[in-house]
Amino acid sequence: MVYIQRTEHFCSAHKLENPKWSSEKNHEVFGKCASPNYHGHNYVLTVVVKGEINPDTGFVMNFTDLKRILRTEIIDVVDHKNLNTDVDFMSGILTSAENLVVAFWDILAPEILKNGAELHVIKLEETISNVVEYYGN
Amino acid sequence: MVYIQRTEHFCSAHKLENPKWSSEKNHEVFGKCASPNYHGHNYVLTVVVKGEINPDTGFVMNFTDLKRILRTEIIDVVDHKNLNTDVDFMSGILTSAENLVVAFWDILAPEILKNGAELHVIKLEETISNVVEYYGN
Amino acid sequence: MVYIQRTEHFCSAHKLENPKWSSEKNHEVFGKCASPNYHGHNYVLTVVVKGEINPDTGFVMNFTDLKRILRTEIIDVVDHKNLNTDVDFMSGILTSAENLVVAFWDILAPEILKNGAELHVIKLEETISNVVEYYGN
Amino acid sequence: MVYIQRTEHFCSAHKLENPKWSSEKNHEVFGKCASPNYHGHNYVLTVVVKGEINPDTGFVMNFTDLKRILRTEIIDVVDHKNLNTDVDFMSGILTSAENLVVAFWDILAPEILKNGAELHVIKLEETISNVVEYYGN
Amino acid sequence: MVYIQRTEHFCSAHKLENPKWSSEKNHEVFGKCASPNYHGHNYVLTVVVKGEINPDTGFVMNFTDLKRILRTEIIDVVDHKNLNTDVDFMSGILTSAENLVVAFWDILAPEILKNGAELHVIKLEETISNVVEYYGN
Amino acid sequence: MVYIQRTEHFCSAHKLENPKWSSEKNHEVFGKCASPNYHGHNYVLTVVVKGEINPDTGFVMNFTDLKRILRTEIIDVVDHKNLNTDVDFMSGILTSAENLVVAFWDILAPEILKNGAELHVIKLEETISNVVEYYGN
Repeated sequence: MVYIQRTEHFCSAHKLENPKWSSEKNHEVFGKCASPNYHGHNYVLTVVVKGEINPDTGFVMNFTDLKRILRTEIIDVVDHKNLNTDVDFMSGILTSAENLVVAFWDILAPEILKNGAELHVIKLEETISNVVEYYGN
Repeated sequence: MVYIQRTEHFCSAHKLENPKWSSEKNHEVFGKCASPNYHGHNYVLTVVVKGEINPDTGFVMNFTDLKRILRTEIIDVVDHKNLNTDVDFMSGILTSAENLVVAFWDILAPEILKNGAELHVIKLEETISNVVEYYGN
Repeated sequence: MVYIQRTEHFCSAHKLENPKWSSEKNHEVFGKCASPNYHGHNYVLTVVVKGEINPDTGFVMNFTDLKRILRTEIIDVVDHKNLNTDVDFMSGILTSAENLVVAFWDILAPEILKNGAELHVIKLEETISNVVEYYGN
Repeated sequence: MVYIQRTEHFCSAHKLENPKWSSEKNHEVFGKCASPNYHGHNYVLTVVVKGEINPDTGFVMNFTDLKRILRTEIIDVVDHKNLNTDVDFMSGILTSAENLVVAFWDILAPEILKNGAELHVIKLEETISNVVEYYGN
Repeated sequence: MVYIQRTEHFCSAHKLENPKWSSEKNHEVFGKCASPNYHGHNYVLTVVVKGEINPDTGFVMNFTDLKRILRTEIIDVVDHKNLNTDVDFMSGILTSAENLVVAFWDILAPEILKNGAELHVIKLEETISNVVEYYGN
Repeated sequence: MVYIQRTEHFCSAHKLENPKWSSEKNHEVFGKCASPNYHGHNYVLTVVVKGEINPDTGFVMNFTDLKRILRTEIIDVVDHKNLNTDVDFMSGILTSAENLVVAFWDILAPEILKNGAELHVIKLEETISNVVEYYGN
């Protein structure tokens, strides 16, 4: 079992705002992340996939295929978009990094399986200091 | 003459949109940067200041003072904000990285002078690949 | 179960010196790290915390709380200090990166628990090339 | 049980080419990595070793010993070499990053054991975007 | 006058070998860089371009155009290639980083001019430690 | 004229303390950098050298020679040392990054000249955020 890792980037706007709460409560909990007209990030998305090495290619999975899946399924949908208003799969969900990785998992895991490998972990850097990871439940 | 350099970060939303142009023309020129509901970046702001070394401190300028000026004058104004709608000094100006560094220069240069040093260059990273610099006119 | 990661920095002096050993033996084992008047590092401390996502916030734990705990419990105690002489919890303990992460764990694990999450791993970079990790016993 | 991590670099030429396949098939599967006169990389090799802390040294294993093993067993053999033609232990094996980490494991694991610690994982970065990991079978 | 900077990457094989010298002399001068079957690097190419800001776009030059020029003129020609054998404009020239930046300048400077801006400096990282820069003659 | 750049690292202890001042005054000016038992840094030293390309080597100056000069003249003297107490050329001088680069210049400039090239600039990173540069007076 070998693990392969691919990193992609996307630049999106978002804000953290619980619609059940007052503006005051949102600012108390989310601080400047609740700023009403949005802010944004250069997100760094890293995906780790595991599997056996194919003896004909020396690959667990062709990096070209992994790159294509990440770009088609995630990057093209979220890059240079507003995560709160433009992305269907985040509709009605708080756009925290935690909720993003769980949503990305549900989209990517079956696509990786179709390519004969298995999704192991998704990491998402919102800033250099703040990072989340999800291994599936 | 010694040069000192300080780096700060801010996370903002923006879009590129010339209000004199049609939506089609904006997309033709600005591509995905014209996406209507904004996108965003982790901007990296680096400021270089020059001056003589003060023999009592060994400093061109106290880094603590430079950090305070950057945070008060720039970071507190743009961080977790929308550069198109929330920042007075960008009002009516396209929020390209080029226009941002020129605007930052006009704010920072006199503040640095008051501290006995001289602003040399401002660098702004919008992404790892795209960076602009301004040395004053 | 989602994992969140926060990175902080501190700048400290230290040396490696076993008081039971001669100066020669210390230099033989610890090399230049035994230099008598200390050397120092820009340490990079990364803490990973795990837990369930709170549906009201989208957070495993508020990054603001994690940052506050790290700063209060660790950074304020070790930053711009001498690890051999100024830090109570390292008193009588060799200030290797390994011993530092174990000491940090004992301080941080109960504080994280009080915030409804669980400490998963502590990583400490002494230099870019030398890094240690601790997952608890 | 504490984990220590050491990073080394090497610069090598290679290409991906399955000798059982036609040139067309090789280009179809490996793309530009099959370019006949080789290309190359600045590989980043990270090794994680685990063990108990020795109370006399504060070390799981002396970083100096780990560095020496990595340089003698791996770096001196592959650095500024052609992985397809100059490295005995890759003879007849596709020089994918996956196959490299497995080969490195077989060489390093027994050497680490002789030093009283245990190899945990080997990571190899071929580029910033493409990374593989191996934890042993 | 504002400066804009764009970074691209390429992965190539090369060796340093003066054909007028013996193998011994080549190894004496170039060390392991003269290894006969080539080695390789992940080169990082950064180009800085200067010009006035266009008031309609906020741009010195559209980053999309700069990216296209770099990819068409340089990256497509050198990426995943052997600099000694596959690149016409390096034919008969030692493939040192110094000679590469001079050759890149001669190709890029007229292309940038056609886009209404001026090439300022080319930087090339061969490794993290070794970098060269060229400002034109 | 081509510029070549080499980066080296050193890990040192230091503190900022003007002996003509009271402890209170030192803390007022230098803050935590005046902590009495020292703190330390992973300094990153970058040196840029300029000259003509030698047609026989393709080099401005052999990187091997530049590396040897930096290691012999600077790194061996300051690495794993206390800059306030162990380094002769800083004796009686405040160990600010500004004073360090000026002292390094006076040592390195004549050594580079002996190798047929010219020192252009010295950069010193004390932390990622705080950097100084010196071009000679």
